Amino acid sequence: MDTIRTTELQQHIGKRVQLHGWLHNLRQMGGIRFLVLRDGYGTAQAVTENEADFAPLLNLALESVITLEGTVTQTPQAPGGVELHQPRITAITPTTEAPPVALHKRELKAGLPVLLDHAVITNRHPARRAIFRLAAGAMAGFRATLNGMGFTEIQTPKMVASATESGANVFELDYFGRPAYLAQSPQFYKQIMVGVFERVYEVGPVFRAEPHDTSRHVNEYVSLDVEFGFIENHFTVMALLREVLAGIFTTLAERYTAELTLLHANLPIVLPEIPHIHFAAAQELIWQQHGVDVRGEPDLSPQDERWLGEWAQQEHGSDFLFVTGYPMGKRPFYTHPDPANPGYSNSFDLLFRGTELVTGGQRLHLYSDYLAALAQAGLPTAPFATYLEAFRYGMPPHGGFAIGLERLLMQLLGLPNLRLATLFPRDMQRLAP
Amino acid sequence: MDTIRTTELQQHIGKRVQLHGWLHNLRQMGGIRFLVLRDGYGTAQAVTENEADFAPLLNLALESVITLEGTVTQTPQAPGGVELHQPRITAITPTTEAPPVALHKRELKAGLPVLLDHAVITNRHPARRAIFRLAAGAMAGFRATLNGMGFTEIQTPKMVASATESGANVFELDYFGRPAYLAQSPQFYKQIMVGVFERVYEVGPVFRAEPHDTSRHVNEYVSLDVEFGFIENHFTVMALLREVLAGIFTTLAERYTAELTLLHANLPIVLPEIPHIHFAAAQELIWQQHGVDVRGEPDLSPQDERWLGEWAQQEHGSDFLFVTGYPMGKRPFYTHPDPANPGYSNSFDLLFRGTELVTGGQRLHLYSDYLAALAQAGLPTAPFATYLEAFRYGMPPHGGFAIGLERLLMQLLGLPNLRLATLFPRDMQRLAP
Repeated sequence: MDTIRTTELQQHIGKRVQLHGWLHNLRQMGGIRFLVLRDGYGTAQAVTENEADFAPLLNLALESVITLEGTVTQTPQAPGGVELHQPRITAITPTTEAPPVALHKRELKAGLPVLLDHAVITNRHPARRAIFRLAAGAMAGFRATLNGMGFTEIQTPKMVASATESGANVFELDYFGRPAYLAQSPQFYKQIMVGVFERVYEVGPVFRAEPHDTSRHVNEYVSLDVEFGFIENHFTVMALLREVLAGIFTTLAERYTAELTLLHANLPIVLPEIPHIHFAAAQELIWQQHGVDVRGEPDLSPQDERWLGEWAQQEHGSDFLFVTGYPMGKRPFYTHPDPANPGYSNSFDLLFRGTELVTGGQRLHLYSDYLAALAQAGLPTAPFATYLEAFRYGMPPHGGFAIGLERLLMQLLGLPNLRLATLFPRDMQRLAP
Repeated sequence: MDTIRTTELQQHIGKRVQLHGWLHNLRQMGGIRFLVLRDGYGTAQAVTENEADFAPLLNLALESVITLEGTVTQTPQAPGGVELHQPRITAITPTTEAPPVALHKRELKAGLPVLLDHAVITNRHPARRAIFRLAAGAMAGFRATLNGMGFTEIQTPKMVASATESGANVFELDYFGRPAYLAQSPQFYKQIMVGVFERVYEVGPVFRAEPHDTSRHVNEYVSLDVEFGFIENHFTVMALLREVLAGIFTTLAERYTAELTLLHANLPIVLPEIPHIHFAAAQELIWQQHGVDVRGEPDLSPQDERWLGEWAQQEHGSDFLFVTGYPMGKRPFYTHPDPANPGYSNSFDLLFRGTELVTGGQRLHLYSDYLAALAQAGLPTAPFATYLEAFRYGMPPHGGFAIGLERLLMQLLGLPNLRLATLFPRDMQRLAP
């Protein structure tokens, strides 16, 4: 007798099989008893009119771990068109308490705090875990696309000596009696590694000690980082980002239909060329279309981003919009200025359905430019000594970007809070589970 | 004219092409001038007898970034059998200082501290970067093998509330005014996630505040973590680990021949069944073969591991050896005891060429067993509340393992120090670069 997964039932019709998993649901209609088993991949229903078949379940709470043997039978009215008859049940791990949140309902009926407090259990719910299966798919699509373009994966240190990139908002730790910091991003290392491999990417945690509580920020998240050399300017970077996004969504479309269907996800179309608008033109547009004068503001607000997202949809039929040329004043010191208009930068944000998803751009590459930029920013050179060494000994024009994995899922699935796209979120109030 | 990589020269013989990269070497023999360009993938040689061709290099130091145009010409005596004639050179990023370590020598002539102090530059050396290319290959092989077996990739938080797993040796950080810790491993989370996906893996950084300085430890490394449910015992885990190792080395053999050749790497053969020996039998063997009485010791020493590695080679022709059944006293509280001999555990180490590469085993899965194990270890339950929640609501028999990525490379390549297999190592003295 084969031991199979719930997703393999169709290939075993008429056969006696064995499944193992969790006791997901149990109910009775008239004289008919139904059992739903959930394994790591899906669910399967067993049916019997014989009370004795379910006797081994007598003292088991839902979420007990069981083995279910049965005959795979085509039944049009069963979920998925197939169910198990003549069930034989054995308990593997009996439990006695009902789970803190009912997992067998189609939708989890719990507020955000309960959902997160009991994430250990609530992430078992099919609609919750589908989100994290898509996260795995997004990472796989990201890597596959970049591997195909000659990128090398790197893993860079997360404990760093200087709170360098932006000064504030870093977590400090005790490193054998001296202070160290958690990396806010692999920015410096990925640039350094362009000097080694030309094209690199990293998938890993980043840490932001931002002391504000919003629905779209957490303090630790997964960053999909890319950096590569021999670019013309930020438009080279944007073109590559377009390929990466297309690769991610193609992977999801091809291999994650069950999850996308379950979550009613509406995959975006990635146009052959994603539309772009200059920062100043975007502000002008908002003024003209919405009568709000944001011209001269150093950054876009969330409301500005939503308006621009709507405009991209209406004007270009695009879920995505590049905003280019952010003012230099709001960008980090390594940002390359626009040679034609040095108050603006060769950088961009990518809005996905009206929310910032990616930040990227061209970086400075000349050693002398770095020295000047640090001086201009009033920063000392000593904490940047190893970073600067890369530029001292030859770096090509280069750029890159970082995609927030959880942000990508939140926007793709229309979730109201980034925490719902985070396996075990970290925020100002939450360090566990 | 095509812009190509150095690895694509063979497909362009007779054509005029353009390459970009770093000025790797420059020399003269008689009237013939040679230039070696290094890009992110390999090197290419350009040759000329015309001094004027190299005039643009006049004030450039090695490691300057250049464009090299030339005619691809088959030349049996050239490296790789092909070189560029009629070169035309343009400087992209001129540099003026010689790099701190000569990168153009076949071997890097520098002591370990210099190599590490200038890792930003020394990692550019072909023999250094080949190590990290193999690291990327090992991660890719690890993931591909597991994806093929129904595993889901997860990313779990690195900032955690309790210094739980082993108490000591954790880095403490300031989390908005309260203490938090860096995860020593994703152990608890990967077990919890077995309740969600059955089979999970994670590739990510782990942090060990171990205050000792050895050639085979660093304080931050990349852990390849696996955990899965519905196992029989630790032998199920060992069988899966065998497949993962075979998958990793097959990936390297198929796609990283250039790097393996450059590093004179000798790929291990992964036997269909990796030999195994029980901990007690291993101690007995050492006593009999080497006259050193280690029987009753709670652990194996590095010398013991070397002896056992030699024995596995002589007796079984195997680069790998499982040592099973380590005494419970030296294993963490979640370790499953050997039901037939509860002083020993259902755990294992895998030795690779006489050094521990992997630790793994079966875990406890019953809630009541966890409560008993914590009581036995004299540990309170409160810091483990969220971990325990997984077991309270049903977990199957499960187990897993963790491979140290850098350790794998060190042993594969016969490196004398783990730091040489680490991109930017962290140890008690070193937080930068």
